[in-house]
Parts: sequence; C-alpha cells; structure tokens
Amino acid sequence: MSTIINVILSGGVGSRLWPLSRKSKPKQYLPIFEGNTLFELTVKRNQDLVDRTVLVGSEQNKALAAPYLKDVPHDVIAEVLPRNTAAAIAFAAFHAQPEDVLIVTPSDHLIEDMNRYVEAIEQGVVFAKEGYIATFGIRPTRPETGYGYIEHEHHSVLSFREKPNAETARDFLKNGNFLWNSGIFCFKAGVYLEELRRFEPKLYQTAAAAFDHADELVLDEERSKQIPSKSIDYAVLERSELIKVVPANFKWSDMGAFDSLFAYFQEKGYPIDENGNIVVGSTKHTMFVGLTNCMVVNTEDAMLILDRSKAQEVKQIYEQLEKEDSPLVQ
Amino acid sequence: MSTIINVILSGGVGSRLWPLSRKSKPKQYLPIFEGNTLFELTVKRNQDLVDRTVLVGSEQNKALAAPYLKDVPHDVIAEVLPRNTAAAIAFAAFHAQPEDVLIVTPSDHLIEDMNRYVEAIEQGVVFAKEGYIATFGIRPTRPETGYGYIEHEHHSVLSFREKPNAETARDFLKNGNFLWNSGIFCFKAGVYLEELRRFEPKLYQTAAAAFDHADELVLDEERSKQIPSKSIDYAVLERSELIKVVPANFKWSDMGAFDSLFAYFQEKGYPIDENGNIVVGSTKHTMFVGLTNCMVVNTEDAMLILDRSKAQEVKQIYEQLEKEDSPLVQ
Repeated sequence: MSTIINVILSGGVGSRLWPLSRKSKPKQYLPIFEGNTLFELTVKRNQDLVDRTVLVGSEQNKALAAPYLKDVPHDVIAEVLPRNTAAAIAFAAFHAQPEDVLIVTPSDHLIEDMNRYVEAIEQGVVFAKEGYIATFGIRPTRPETGYGYIEHEHHSVLSFREKPNAETARDFLKNGNFLWNSGIFCFKAGVYLEELRRFEPKLYQTAAAAFDHADELVLDEERSKQIPSKSIDYAVLERSELIKVVPANFKWSDMGAFDSLFAYFQEKGYPIDENGNIVVGSTKHTMFVGLTNCMVVNTEDAMLILDRSKAQEVKQIYEQLEKEDSPLVQ
Repeated sequence: MSTIINVILSGGVGSRLWPLSRKSKPKQYLPIFEGNTLFELTVKRNQDLVDRTVLVGSEQNKALAAPYLKDVPHDVIAEVLPRNTAAAIAFAAFHAQPEDVLIVTPSDHLIEDMNRYVEAIEQGVVFAKEGYIATFGIRPTRPETGYGYIEHEHHSVLSFREKPNAETARDFLKNGNFLWNSGIFCFKAGVYLEELRRFEPKLYQTAAAAFDHADELVLDEERSKQIPSKSIDYAVLERSELIKVVPANFKWSDMGAFDSLFAYFQEKGYPIDENGNIVVGSTKHTMFVGLTNCMVVNTEDAMLILDRSKAQEVKQIYEQLEKEDSPLVQ
C-alpha cells in the first residue's frame, strides 16, 4: 500500500522581495497574504490530498515551519548546504518507499481556486501511479516573461523553454500550446530515483551518501559538498521519456517580485492611489507627488522605494548588501 | 535721532514644504538648516545692523519666535487675520516713529554671504535716509521661473515682473538687466505710510484703525476684517516714484519648495544617491530602485514621496488636506 507524500521545498530567501524577505525570514514565511504565509497555505492546500508532509530545506526552516506543521504528520529533512532541486527531491525520495507517490511543491507560490488544483493533482497522481513523472503546466493568461514555459500537445511535453523575451512570450501566448512551468511535480519515489541514477549517476550517488550519513535527518555536511548543484529540470525532466504534463487552470503566481505582490494586493482591494502607487508595511499617511506605479516597502530597519516596472532589479540590491555583509539581509 | 528697525514678516505656512511644514510649525520655524531655523538666521543676520526687531505675524508666532528673540530688543505685532504685506508693514510703520528706518525682511528665506548682505543693506539704509523706498534685487544665476523679477538700470526700477515662463526667464537672464525680487525693503516709516495713504487710502485708514484699537499689539479683529488684502508690491512699489533698487550678489533662496531645499542639502553634502534620490527626516536605510530625482520626506505622522521636478505641486496636496480639515496640516 503506497503512501502519498507532499514534499515541500523550502529553499531560497526570495531576495527580490527585500526588505520584506531576509535570510532569517524567507518569502514563504512572511504573513502578508491576508495574514497567512505562503508556507502555511502550501501545507493546508495539500494536507487533505496526502498522508504525510516532508519538508526539505535549510536547518533554520525547522523553527520557521514548526507552527504550520504541528497539526500534520511530517518530517523535516535539513540540508546543511543548498544543493538545488534535483538533490533536495532525491533526499525526500530516499526517505520514502519506492512505491510512495511524491507530490513535490514549492513553498513560496500562491495558488487559488482549490477545486481546479485538486483536480489537476488527482490527474497527476494517476500518472504517477502509472509510472510517469507528472509536471503541471498553467494555461498562461498574459505574455509573462518571468516564467519558464512547457510546450505541449495534450499530456505530452514537446519542449521545456527558459524565460522568454517579450516577443517570444507573445508568440507563446498566441500559439496556445505553451503552459507556464509551475514547479510542481508528481511521481513515485522509485521512478524519480531510477531516472536520476540513469541521467546523473554522480548526483544520485553523492546525494545518497549524504542522506545515508544524515544524523536525525540532518544531512552530512562534508558529503553534501560533493553533490552537483542541478535543478530537477536539467537533471531529469528535460531528458526523461516518462514525462507527462497536466494542463491546469488554477490561479498561480510565483510571487517572485514586487510586481506579482502588487497584482495580488490590487486584487484584494488593498489601498492604491489613482496613479498606481502603494505603500506596504506602514499605515502612516503617505502621499505621492509626480510619481506613478511606485511602491514603498517599509520595514523596521530598511525602506525600499521602487518603480514597479523595475521589480526584478531588487535582487541586485539584495546581492550588493549581501556582499557588504550587511545586517539588513539577515 | 532715528532708530533702525528690522521688521520681520512671518506670514505663511510654507505649504509646499508639507509634511515638514504645518500650521503649528511654519517653514521658518523648522530647524533643518544645519540645526537652525530660517527665522533664527533672519534675526541673527540683522541684529547687528539694527536697534530693534519687530515681528509682524499671526498670534501663534509669539510662542514660536520667542526663543529666537529673547536676546534682542523686540516687539511682536500680532495679526488676528492675515491681511498681506502692505498692511503688515503698515502696522510696523505705525508702531515706529516717522523718521525710523525699517528694514523689512521675510522670515523664511535663506541668505548666505554675510559681507555682501551687509553691504547691500547699508546702501539701502542710505537710500532710505534720503527719503527713498529701497528694494533689493539679486543678480540671477539661472533662468528661475519661481521668482519675480525687477528690470533695472543702475538703481532705477524700469519694471516689476511676475514669475516668468521658462522662455522669458532665459531672456531675462541673457538680457542682464533683470534681478530677482528678494522681498526685502528699506524705507523710513513715514515715507512708506505717506505713499500708502496716497495710493491706497482705504487700506491705510483701515489698517490704522485696526492698529489704533490693538490690545497690547494684538490687532483688533473686527477692524482687521475691513483691511483690503494687498501686497506691498501692488499697493506701493509698482506705483511710487520713490523706488530705488539695490542690486546685490549675496546668495539668496526663498526655500519655497523641495527643489530649493534639495539644492541646499546637496550643497551641504547631505547624502544623496547616484540617481539624485534623497531621504529627509529618517535615518532608516533606504534604497531606491528604478527612480531618479526622488525625494522622501518623512515625519512622525505623514510621509511624502516626491518627484523633485514636481515640487510645486505639493501645495495642492496641502490645500486638499486643508479642505478635508485633516489633522495632518495642523
């Protein structure tokens, strides 16, 4: 009897949401979605679909995730070093039985429209049980340049595509055969590990070694250093013959940067002035003069004043502060 | 023996510097000029040139000005209603002897280069003693559209000009015979009153009545309502044959709006990022992304995010808040 497991990946900081997100408070733990965190919403979204939850992430995730995991059967696999998604998912697969079905989800995306989500996941589980590796593709609603795409025909993947430029994104949308790559996957633990061993034997072996020498699910540091850092997309998805895609219509956003967050706040009726200016993190009366599409992000020790069309550039601010060893990223 | 009196006019709020300036804290009382207020700098600049200081302004000025006046012989004439400069100066003139020389100065302008200032004022006092009404014109250093101009030939005024448009301002600068109208005047009290009576008999009489019925230099309210609200420029300067202009080279700014304040801060070496962005009123670490020439003005209860090229429009924010009876202008 196989178990269904929600593998939640909790990796990055979400540096493009600085100063809200910090090393000590990654994006998925910010309670800014009507008071909820994206992590919490991920756990709740999946808990009735699975038997168990496995979190894979850095050790600090343990404390941050604890309040949201306390009511579900769960394990936490602690990575001492980040080694990208191919290895992170391998750890969860090693921890499971080969016949167990893993539903792998990021912890930092926003999904709405639960019925459609459940429908898509159930279809994915069917594929998984048949021995396939299921991916989930979201039907695009705009020519988004911030997401990867999956070219498909029904459930078959024709190609995976990197983030396109604006012109290509418009072509994708017009073409109609392209889906946003959601980063959600579903497969049997054994099927994934078999494909990983086949395409990335070194990654497989080093990950297995780090896992086998884990101490209470805290991975072995020295052995972790040996693991090649590759995404599941490069390591397995783009090479395996077992891929199926489930086209889905649920509402999905990676909340990657402040433009996504703005769209969310706008939809929820958050106050925005007539020129598209918004203040986050302060209730102080704020007036904008001569500015449009400006976003003020206020925190206790740092403030960001952003032209929303430059939302991606916040990453560079973060990286600069990190290089300077600034306490403002901690 | 005539006395020389510095008449300091302390009228407006400086609404274009909102949220720094408020009704309870007009621009001239903001300690933002290396810790000094413009009012204080005005008193100090003139105290060695005069025998006495007379402040004319609304009643709340008494408390605000007190710390800066305590070391100089002074009187405060309290207007119950604002009635513009022709009347305000008349009150100071009524309070003086006809032969007293009045050096009338705004309280909210910044002047640097003391030697040149003293030189200009001394020339003005000479004219005043000869029975003239002296104005002071600053040699323009840029085609400023925010100031009025004086067309002159040596000490003779050819015309007074309203704030010009950009093209006219460039013509004025090129022409070389135009000076910025500084709002500083010098004349004998009796000469001013004589000219005022001649050109504006009603204004003269109603102002005299309000002054004569003052209670400890607090003007009579009912009689104040009768006084026509006119500037000294319209009431006297543009009509009198007794006008002399003193061209001067001291550094002068009306600090009317945030663009002037920015120029001041820039000169004083205040931190400004490489795109000309600046934060006033907060030491919180602030980063700007995708924005240029942006100014953040932070106060305890309100924040302004301003495109500096739209600095004049802050007045409209203030007026709107005032209309809404907002506590944020109090």
